[in-house]
Amino acid sequence: MERNLLCPRFEKAVEILSKRWTSLIVFQLLSGPQRFINIDQALPNLSGKVLSERLKELEHEGIVKRVVFPESPVRIEYSLTDKGQALAPIFGEITKWSQEWLPVQE
Amino acid sequence: MERNLLCPRFEKAVEILSKRWTSLIVFQLLSGPQRFINIDQALPNLSGKVLSERLKELEHEGIVKRVVFPESPVRIEYSLTDKGQALAPIFGEITKWSQEWLPVQE
Repeated sequence: MERNLLCPRFEKAVEILSKRWTSLIVFQLLSGPQRFINIDQALPNLSGKVLSERLKELEHEGIVKRVVFPESPVRIEYSLTDKGQALAPIFGEITKWSQEWLPVQE
Repeated sequence: MERNLLCPRFEKAVEILSKRWTSLIVFQLLSGPQRFINIDQALPNLSGKVLSERLKELEHEGIVKRVVFPESPVRIEYSLTDKGQALAPIFGEITKWSQEWLPVQE
């Protein structure tokens, strides 16, 4: 019987985006470059340890970049690369779907 | 400091879609109603037990429906509801992103 196999690139994209917290971190960064503390505060249930791991993974995937500003004290900002910014339409569609189909939560 | 909190409906959507295998099952069902065995064969690394759990969860979320055809032997098909079908644009955007930004895998 013919198998309807998934495209490996599609599977890889789903794997990246499905990792716990990853999508919410990318979504948070869509609003612009931010310091670690800002992302941490926007996602109250996410521990600093996991945020740090996820940011490293996203850097490794080329989705997030970490920029060090040589000020005193040093300022470090995280932002999306072009590859990361290109995820915006996915989040736009998730937002639309959630507003149309999920109940308003109290 | 003002917190840039996420919309709970967006978070809920990400939670649903991020659950391991869920997105791939929904994607598979976008090609039309299917029997359990067909979904199972299309996702070779997914066990029947987990597929069965995920289909129940997706039914519970109103994303998948299970239709029993009273034939002999009985035929059971899984398909997307309108709410499930409305996820198509999200998967369209994931496909586009993966094709533009992820390397072709051998």
